[in-house]
This record gives sequence, C-alpha cells and structure tokens, in this order.
Amino acid sequence: MSVKEIAVMADIYQENDRVAENIRQNLKSKGVYAVNLIGAPGTGKTSCLIRVIEGLKGVGCSVIEGDIQSDIDTEKLRLMGISAVQINTGGACHIEAVQIQKALEKLSLEEKSLLFIENIGNLVCPAEFDIGEDIKILAVTVAEGSDKPYKYPLAFKKAGAVILNKADLLPYVDFDADYFYKGVRALNPKAPIFKVSAKTGEGFDEVCAWLKSAL
Amino acid sequence: MSVKEIAVMADIYQENDRVAENIRQNLKSKGVYAVNLIGAPGTGKTSCLIRVIEGLKGVGCSVIEGDIQSDIDTEKLRLMGISAVQINTGGACHIEAVQIQKALEKLSLEEKSLLFIENIGNLVCPAEFDIGEDIKILAVTVAEGSDKPYKYPLAFKKAGAVILNKADLLPYVDFDADYFYKGVRALNPKAPIFKVSAKTGEGFDEVCAWLKSAL
Repeated sequence: MSVKEIAVMADIYQENDRVAENIRQNLKSKGVYAVNLIGAPGTGKTSCLIRVIEGLKGVGCSVIEGDIQSDIDTEKLRLMGISAVQINTGGACHIEAVQIQKALEKLSLEEKSLLFIENIGNLVCPAEFDIGEDIKILAVTVAEGSDKPYKYPLAFKKAGAVILNKADLLPYVDFDADYFYKGVRALNPKAPIFKVSAKTGEGFDEVCAWLKSAL
Repeated sequence: MSVKEIAVMADIYQENDRVAENIRQNLKSKGVYAVNLIGAPGTGKTSCLIRVIEGLKGVGCSVIEGDIQSDIDTEKLRLMGISAVQINTGGACHIEAVQIQKALEKLSLEEKSLLFIENIGNLVCPAEFDIGEDIKILAVTVAEGSDKPYKYPLAFKKAGAVILNKADLLPYVDFDADYFYKGVRALNPKAPIFKVSAKTGEGFDEVCAWLKSAL
C-alpha cells in the first residue's frame, strides 16, 4: 500500500470507530445489549440465532441481518415473528458502523433487550470492524476443520464467546478437538466455547443461560 | 465512501490488474496454466488440491499457498513432495497480483505445467481480484448449505468451475441440490460443477480429466 492508501484506510477506520462508539453509548442508554455474530459462510449463524432467540423466551430480541445480497435469512426470522431488518452491502465483505446506525432507525428496541447483528459470512474482515457491539460471538463448525484458529487468528482473538456448531456431524468428520481448543486458548484464554448443534438443539441451554447473565 | 476513497480504491484495482496481466502473459509464454482456487474457510481447498495433483501424475504441478498466517498447508504439500511456496498476507483477506509476482521468483516452473494458487479462505474478496490466473475454481461444500450462490453471487459468477466438496456428508446434512444448482446456473450457465469428496476421492477423475483437457 502507498502512503496515500494507508492514510485513507486509517481515516476509514477512525470514522467507523467514532460512529461505533456513538451506537454503543446510545444502545447502552436504552439498556440494549448488542451482539455482533461473525463467522465464515455456512457456519449456521442464522440457525444458531433462531435457537438462541427461541431459548430466550421472555427476553426481547431484535436482529439486524447483514448479507451481500438476498434477504433469505431475514424472511426466515420474520416468519418466526422475530423483528428483523436487512442490510445488503451490495458486494462489501463486512458491515460498517454507519450501516448499523441507519438500520437502527428502522427498529424499535425494547428496554433491556438483546440486539443481534449477523455479519457477512466471512472469517476475516468482520473481525476488524467495530460496529457498536458489546460483544463479538464467533460461529465456527466441526465441518470446517480444527485448524481455523491457527489460520484466522484475529476472529478468535476478538471473540467474546465461540460457538462450535454442527456438533451432530462429529462422527462423520475428522475434527481434532484438542488441536482446536489448544488453538483457541493460545489466542483467547477466557472466552467460553459452546459446543452446539443448531440442527438438534444440543448445547443452546448453556448459550442462553450465559447470554441472560450478560444482560 | 468518499470521492477520495473511491479514487484510491480505483487506483489499487488498476495497478493490480496491470501486474496480473503481466503475470498471465509471462506464464503463457512458458506454457503454464494457472488456477486460482477460491472458497470459504474449511471448504477443503488443500485436500482437493492434493487429490487433483495425485490424479494428475505425469503433469508438472506447483502450488502457491495463500494464508493470513501459518504454513500448515504448505508443509502438508511439501511432505508429499509437491513444490509449494507460502504467501502470508498478515491480515489481508485476499491475495493481490504483486504477491504472486514475488512468489513466482521462488518457483521454478516446468514447461506445460499447472500452477495452483490457493487463495485466502474467503467467499467474498478473492473473487474481486485478478491475480494473473487463467481460471478461477470455486470450492464449496454440502455442509455450507445450498443457499450460497444466492448470498455470495460474485464468486459463483466468476468461477470457471465449481467443486462441490464433502459429498460424503450428504446423508447427514440438509443440502437441497436442486436449489443449489438452480442458483449456480442463474449466475453462471456454463461452468462445470464437480461433486467430489476429498475424503473418499469420489469425483476427482472427472476434475483431473477436465483439467488435462485445458492444458
């Protein structure tokens, strides 16, 4: 990158962080806890969200769905009666804070509620951008292989919790759990790691109990 | 994005495309056919590469391995006697042409051989960057779900071939093949779609025969 390119990128990050901090303070004043759900494509982010929201009955939940294109997941959520707003980035590989600011204008958030933001399916770029969340939750799967922390360290470093999804596939894939946990712990000594299956529902009681305790 | 930001991004793309075109002409003059292998994290790109190179006995093959961090895959390839060079992007979400230019200085390529470039695991950004390849091959898996063409259209549009990996998991996942094929064909009417399993070896005879015909 040239000096000019680096300066422009620094401007982009700085402006993004300023907007993100405004969003965070604004949500905090309303008692809303915001979760930025990140993970590669096909890790079951929406399916996990549905399990979590079902498990959190009695707690107000809203969703901002990020996709490059399509509103497949937003429609899924709305059909279940969940309040959801779509962001389409039209090509961009991550959500930026200014897009959350606009999406929030379309949501009426309850006091003491949860706001889930499902980021673009991408294990790289979303980890770099603060979008005003209180916590990043990282979704990975046993089908992706156990070397992901070693290859994509930033997402694991930034995660406040890791959801290891598709546990129902464990008998059929070569997933080295020791290697995976060792890799996560080397980057992130504290984040809870929840082994779940969005297909069977396994493990979501623990996720929900932990989220309730954060509110 | 501001006007200044857009101008800088246009500069980056233009310079990248110029270097990419140089690489392509240089490889062409040596009779080297270059494959840019793209796909999300954990789609089994390296495992597919190993199957393909094993199946192409008698054809010279070299690999440039792109990773944000680590040389896990390059070591795997070298242990099999495959000539491989590592690129670490140190955070960046895709390979750029200038990185291929530098990596090529470390490889001695045979006449009429194949060069495989394994891009960063990312279904978004690598699709946007020409790195001097003759063809992009896109690896996806049945475990990722059948809606990927609808959500990440650019990678499917740009693919010269699609490898649908992890076919051995089909009995255990909800993969709607009709919906997937319909989605791919709407974006890309011609690219062959190979259903394979890097675990069992299923389907790689067809991939290898097709690649040989391209040389």
